[in-house]
Order: sequence, then C-alpha cells, then structure tokens
Amino acid sequence: MEFQQQFKEYIKRVNNKLEFYLSIKEGKNKRLFQAMGYSVFAGGKRLRPVLSLSAYDMFSDDTEAVLPYACGIEMIHTYSLIHDDLPAMDDDDFRRNKPTNHKVFGEGTAILAGDGLLNYAFEVMLQDALLRNNGKYYSSIYEIIKAAGVNGMIGGQLVDLESEGVSIDGETLDYIHLNKTAALIIASLKVGAIIGDGNIADIKNMEIVGKNLGLAFQIRDDILDIIGSKDKLGKDIGSDENNNKSTYPSIYGLEYSKNKVKALTGEVKEILQGYGKKADFLRSLSLHLMEREY
Amino acid sequence: MEFQQQFKEYIKRVNNKLEFYLSIKEGKNKRLFQAMGYSVFAGGKRLRPVLSLSAYDMFSDDTEAVLPYACGIEMIHTYSLIHDDLPAMDDDDFRRNKPTNHKVFGEGTAILAGDGLLNYAFEVMLQDALLRNNGKYYSSIYEIIKAAGVNGMIGGQLVDLESEGVSIDGETLDYIHLNKTAALIIASLKVGAIIGDGNIADIKNMEIVGKNLGLAFQIRDDILDIIGSKDKLGKDIGSDENNNKSTYPSIYGLEYSKNKVKALTGEVKEILQGYGKKADFLRSLSLHLMEREY
Repeated sequence: MEFQQQFKEYIKRVNNKLEFYLSIKEGKNKRLFQAMGYSVFAGGKRLRPVLSLSAYDMFSDDTEAVLPYACGIEMIHTYSLIHDDLPAMDDDDFRRNKPTNHKVFGEGTAILAGDGLLNYAFEVMLQDALLRNNGKYYSSIYEIIKAAGVNGMIGGQLVDLESEGVSIDGETLDYIHLNKTAALIIASLKVGAIIGDGNIADIKNMEIVGKNLGLAFQIRDDILDIIGSKDKLGKDIGSDENNNKSTYPSIYGLEYSKNKVKALTGEVKEILQGYGKKADFLRSLSLHLMEREY
Repeated sequence: MEFQQQFKEYIKRVNNKLEFYLSIKEGKNKRLFQAMGYSVFAGGKRLRPVLSLSAYDMFSDDTEAVLPYACGIEMIHTYSLIHDDLPAMDDDDFRRNKPTNHKVFGEGTAILAGDGLLNYAFEVMLQDALLRNNGKYYSSIYEIIKAAGVNGMIGGQLVDLESEGVSIDGETLDYIHLNKTAALIIASLKVGAIIGDGNIADIKNMEIVGKNLGLAFQIRDDILDIIGSKDKLGKDIGSDENNNKSTYPSIYGLEYSKNKVKALTGEVKEILQGYGKKADFLRSLSLHLMEREY
C-alpha cells in the first residue's frame, strides 16, 4: 500500500478504537468523558499509535492485538498536553487551532480530564491484558508506564518547567527531549515489536529507531518554531525565542540542527534496511517527519 | 496484639516501604521526587494501606505480598489530594497543618507531582506483579485502577467539583461519597482478600465492608466539619457551610447523619462476625473510625 494511504488507514483504525473507548455514556460522569474526548479528538497527528501499529506490522499479521496499547499511548500523550497547556504550566490558549481543554471546560475539569485519561489508559490496556492472559501484554504496559513516568515523560516535563527562562546546557536539553518527547515514542515502537513477537534484537532495534526519531522529531519542532508557518503549524511561531527557551537551534545554531535531524534520520534508515520491504512504511514515515512543515 | 499497637505496626511497615519507593535519588528529577515525597509524608493517616494489610492478615500469613499494592493505593490517594488542593479545585493552602504541595513547590510542580504519583503507583505495582507472575496481582491492580478512575474516584471528584455552591440531592451526594471516597477504600480491602487468597464470598464481603466503611468515613467527615475541633482536625471547621456545600448533615440533619454512621458501622460488625478473632483489628478500626475526632 502506498504510504499516505497506509497512514490514513492506520489513523482510521486508531480513531475507531478511541471512539469506542471514549464514546460518551449517559451518567453522572458524562462531562468528564466529554472533556477527555474533546482533547483526544482535537486533531492530533496520531504519530505514536501509528508507530505502534506500523512496528507491529513488521513482525506480525494479526492487526488487532496492538490497538488497545496504541490507544493507551495516545491517551497518555493527550493527558500530558492537557496538563502542559494549563496556566500553571505553559499557559496556552490554543492547540492545533482549537481552544485548549481548560479554555473550554475550566481549569479544574481540565486537571481531572488529564488525570482521567492517564488512569483510563492503564485501565483499557490492563483490561485487554487480563483477557489475553499472556505475559507480553503486561510487559508492554510496563514499558509504557516507565516511559510515561517519573523516569520518563513526567521527569522530562519537570526539568522543562524548571528550565523556563533559564539558559540550559546541551546535556539538560537532551534530557528534556529524550524524556519529555522520545520516551513515549520509543515505547510506542517497542510495544509493537513486543506484542508482534519480535526477538530481543528486534526490540532493541525499535528502541534505537525510537530514540533517533523522537530526538529528530523534537529538534524539527524547535526548527519549525523559527522557520515554520503559523498557518501550517496551527500555533504562533517564535514562541521559544520570546520565552527565552533554550532549543537545539539556540544552543547549536540552525544549520547544525538541520544536519542533526538528517543524521538521526539516516541512522534510522540504516537500521530499517535489515527489515527490507516490511519497513517501507516506517522508512517513509521517518523521511516524512524529517521534512514536515507542521 | 492490642489494637493501637497493631495499628502502629501496620503504619510502620507501610511507611518503610513508601520511604523505599520515594527515597530521593540524585538526578535531574530529584525535585520531582522531593515534591512527591513531601505530600506522601505529610502526616496522612494511612487508612487505606492499613485496610489492605489488615484485610490481608485475615486470610493469609505472608505479610509482604500485599505491601506494594497498599503503597500504590496510598500514592494514588495522595495524588488525588495534591490535585484537589490546587487553586483551580478546592484552593486549600493547608492540609494536616502543613502548607499544601503547590504552596511549597508551585502549581506547575504540584500538578506534575500528582501525575507522577499516579503513574508511579502503577509502576511499582506492575513491577511487583511481573516479578510474582501470578494472575491475582494483575487482578488486584485492575481493581485499584477501576476504583481510582473515571468510573470511580475521578468521576466522583468531577461531580463534586460541579456541585460547588449548588444544592444537590441525596442521590448525587451518595454518588460523590461512594466514588470520591468509598471506591478506593473498597479496593483497599478487596485487594487484601484477593492477594490473601480469600474466596469469592470473602472478596464480596470485603467489598460490602468497604462500601459501608467508606460511606461512614465520609459522613463522619461531614459531621466533624460541624462539631469537630480545628486543633484536632488540623484544618478550619465550618468550611462546608461557608462554601454552601451539600453534605449529609445539611440534607438529612445532624442526628440522622450520626445514626447513619452507627448503622453502617453496625453492618460492618455483622459481616466481620463470621471471621471471629481474625477480624479483631478491622472490627476495632471501624469503631475507631466511627468515633474519631480527626
């Protein structure tokens, strides 16, 4: 299947399953599901779940098994955005051209919607794992929990928060990028390999691909904040510079940053070579991410 | 062992294990662990983990197995308090005579410390379950996740938030109490029975005991907000009335509320009768909760 078509197909499967999980039930917690669903369906790129599905497809054919975990990861990603946008954090009123969660539902509800999505992610994943009763599903959840947690995404978010308006060194910036962004991307790919019955070398390869892609993704984000277009990005550009935020371009310069993205993507290509045609989608996706304008 | 001595012994074991989990490691996320540990060690009564340990002791002798789950529940309870105290929620500056988390660490860090505790709770529990590789541990985590989640505690918190300054009916108040407070208390007791290899009737009994205790606990809270002492409670009294908050006493009157607590505790006693001396601690604990002044 051609890349763009396959991408759409993956996204469709993820969205269908997310709609199943987040369909609003009548009941006293109806508004909680509304608030959770608002941000989950606010136009996310679905990068992480698509990574899980495409990694999975490299190793196995049963296309359903990885879906609950891909959706769990997307819920975790979404909760982190809801909390990140809060006035006490980044204080953003818009994301992807839409008002942020707390702008629509109020701060208190946004905090609870975030908490709810994090908790619900583990709930749907563990429910699936209990039904399947196979160790690899529990191991996958553990990968995701660690990546999302205090030694992963949340740890990165805290250092990011502490670095506001402060000049930081490259090591600290790498810590932030690797934990705040790359950790969950790594987990997305690893889970695909684990549930797809990849061997230890495969799982390790997916980890390296994820680390490179995650870092490249974040550096590209930093670059787009300088050379991107507001219309395509759906948010203001120049915000990093205005907020005195240290980024790859601000520490290493724009040219070095662009080359770094190329180099990281090159390493991904090299690893994927060993998987031949099965890695076609992931190969195209990494090129797409390197060149993306939004 | 005498009740008070046993209580202290349980608390000591819980605290030791929590200190093990939350000891501050050197590293970039040091401040995150500081913020998480601050609230976990801010003088909580440890009611929920003690319930898990004492329920477990009714069915089994190996005292270590339930501890990670008891600690996970306490972390979840603590995260809910940190988020509940935020300006966008209850806006409390003090809890148990100490400044609340966001007063000490700032709002952004408090949000992340709460997220961190929720995530870390599942991390330590799942890590333990993977090592033990026995279905009952995974089932226990699932009980806890459900109780803490959108159809449990978080659902109750949202309805509580929506009910601020609004007059609500008894049904809605019961929904709040049963979900915001009782759900995690029920899970604490059920997990003790599940990991202690209690049978289905035992697990069901622990559920009923938890539901009654949880409701009685919350109604007693409402009563203490009227007749309690500020010194003993460590917080201002009269806050429910000042905030126009519907409570058991405001809907049903003080006498009815006191009798309700007694009736619920009586049902607990009846169920525990079937367990003879093994239930001595839990029996004393429910009386203690009914009469507590703080």
